[in-house]
Amino acid sequence: MSSNPVPIARESVLKAYELIKDRVHRTPVITSTSLSTIASTPTEAEQQNADPAPQINLLFKCENFQKIGAFKYRGATHALSRLSDEELKNGVCTHSSGNHAQALALAARERNVKAYIVMPDISAPNKIAGTQGYGAEVVFSGSTAPEREKVLKEVQARTGALFVPPYDHPDIMCGQGTLAVEFLEQAEELGKKLDILVAPCGGGGMLSGVALACHTTGTTVFGAEPSEGGADDASRGLKQGSRIEIVKSLTIADGLRTPVGVKPWSVISNKEYVENVFSVTDEEVKKALQLAVERLKVLVEPSSVVPLATVLYNEEFRHVLRRKAEEKGGSLNVGVVFSGGNVTLARLAELFGGK
Amino acid sequence: MSSNPVPIARESVLKAYELIKDRVHRTPVITSTSLSTIASTPTEAEQQNADPAPQINLLFKCENFQKIGAFKYRGATHALSRLSDEELKNGVCTHSSGNHAQALALAARERNVKAYIVMPDISAPNKIAGTQGYGAEVVFSGSTAPEREKVLKEVQARTGALFVPPYDHPDIMCGQGTLAVEFLEQAEELGKKLDILVAPCGGGGMLSGVALACHTTGTTVFGAEPSEGGADDASRGLKQGSRIEIVKSLTIADGLRTPVGVKPWSVISNKEYVENVFSVTDEEVKKALQLAVERLKVLVEPSSVVPLATVLYNEEFRHVLRRKAEEKGGSLNVGVVFSGGNVTLARLAELFGGK
Repeated sequence: MSSNPVPIARESVLKAYELIKDRVHRTPVITSTSLSTIASTPTEAEQQNADPAPQINLLFKCENFQKIGAFKYRGATHALSRLSDEELKNGVCTHSSGNHAQALALAARERNVKAYIVMPDISAPNKIAGTQGYGAEVVFSGSTAPEREKVLKEVQARTGALFVPPYDHPDIMCGQGTLAVEFLEQAEELGKKLDILVAPCGGGGMLSGVALACHTTGTTVFGAEPSEGGADDASRGLKQGSRIEIVKSLTIADGLRTPVGVKPWSVISNKEYVENVFSVTDEEVKKALQLAVERLKVLVEPSSVVPLATVLYNEEFRHVLRRKAEEKGGSLNVGVVFSGGNVTLARLAELFGGK
Repeated sequence: MSSNPVPIARESVLKAYELIKDRVHRTPVITSTSLSTIASTPTEAEQQNADPAPQINLLFKCENFQKIGAFKYRGATHALSRLSDEELKNGVCTHSSGNHAQALALAARERNVKAYIVMPDISAPNKIAGTQGYGAEVVFSGSTAPEREKVLKEVQARTGALFVPPYDHPDIMCGQGTLAVEFLEQAEELGKKLDILVAPCGGGGMLSGVALACHTTGTTVFGAEPSEGGADDASRGLKQGSRIEIVKSLTIADGLRTPVGVKPWSVISNKEYVENVFSVTDEEVKKALQLAVERLKVLVEPSSVVPLATVLYNEEFRHVLRRKAEEKGGSLNVGVVFSGGNVTLARLAELFGGK
């Protein structure tokens, strides 16, 4: 990675967007009357409180239609675009079993650079094939963090390839944040100013980048994460006042099992950037996934719908939305990020079969 | 229905589009490098023939994003737009367990007209709820054709509602055909002239409308249907030189179980409009469904991918494409219609679980 990372600031996201905008898809923003109606309808508990029901207008940023099927392509592309051919002459490497693997593989191929991806030998065959399909050399490791690190070090020693981390770097954070630059623009094109933007939080690269992009724009950013098995490390960290460093969760939102990284945390823990982070259960993620796929007709992966689940089912967040809607005269434009769509029908069958 | 149906001609489709274009979604057209590559790659048999491999550029018209999740909304909207308030004063009625039910229900509500939908009492609860959700009165019947007809007659006698058939009427055919008017335009906007357009064929309302829309434009139209249980009535009818009137198939492409109607047949059986109709097995439909959903990240129903399956797996059609590509200098723009996306995750789990 660049030894001269970009400053962690809104300006860096805007510059990142200028650098990469011709290489990424400007993914569509969709709206849905039926999901907005569901979000606006008071829950039973809310009905009993007899609070005035807000009008929530949902807008969805569909990064599932991004290259490689996820927003991760933005960060990898930005990271490489800040490196010279000389710096890249020995290629790039990373460890990932998920979307970052394919993102770096494709971004490297587009730059005519060799990519080495360390993947656990238990990775799903389609993910391995996907990464190889983008021309990367896949190197297998055991599945624990030390085993992975060891193999990565060997690869670096053998090849001299530059390590591109999945989220804990300003170039990656600002690359991911470019999705929010587009989202704000596209909402304006639809005649809607985003009051709120909700983004998923795993390692925090995207949430922090989105928060940087929205800083001083009048759009308030929230994070959303799964609670299963303690994957709600960001909200717990905010409550205890310090970053939680280890998470061992098997939440179905498998892209969000990672604890927040050091640099993303510096943004996410600052209320000026991220007002708060809320969490939802795996059952709520499943309900939101079903609504997203069946109503909107788009394929999204479980991690993708954690923000939507939070809007629909997290009581505390719904209370925040109600309060903000009142301040704005009763209605609120809420932007929700769909982060990716890399899920197989076999996996959906596991999640939704046998009912 | 209008007692003064539109003439069965291209001009009627263009007029239909002027009538309805502000009420229907101009659904997106998407392209895919990966699916185009798969379509262009010779099968094993083709490799042995050592034929030159054509470059097939696939374009997909996504009617799964149409209102109610399927193209059927176009036909219903067009049919109602040709009727006066006086003619509609007692409402409209039909029998359908599928997309036509919801299409007519919503089109009627948009026109402030009452809709009565006769549905078999074994219909899926979500389809019944969907139809009621659009404000229609659902009337249950047995599931055989005579039982259905009897209940429909009772509804008409009781209410005086006008019958709107699902496909066998020029107003419906021309309404469905408006999707091709958009498709040709949108392909041009992408700098691509459609050489070929492949549409699914069940009752034939859409295929005949699409064929009318493309007539004299230089775009050659083909139909695609499932072969399971004899649902390939159109291709069989073309071979024997007469329409097949009865089909009893349980193909997974459940929107295409119907035999072609009389009026659609008058177009489909005319080579000047539809060059030919090809069929695929249910296994091929499943393979195409998996590719469409996993690669394109869009939710489509099994009936929707019959044209894609035909492009990828029907040997005879692939031979036709190869020949046409040669005539055009080696490459061909092939438009494929995705007709709808009304399928539940539970149904996908049935189809793709247990592997």
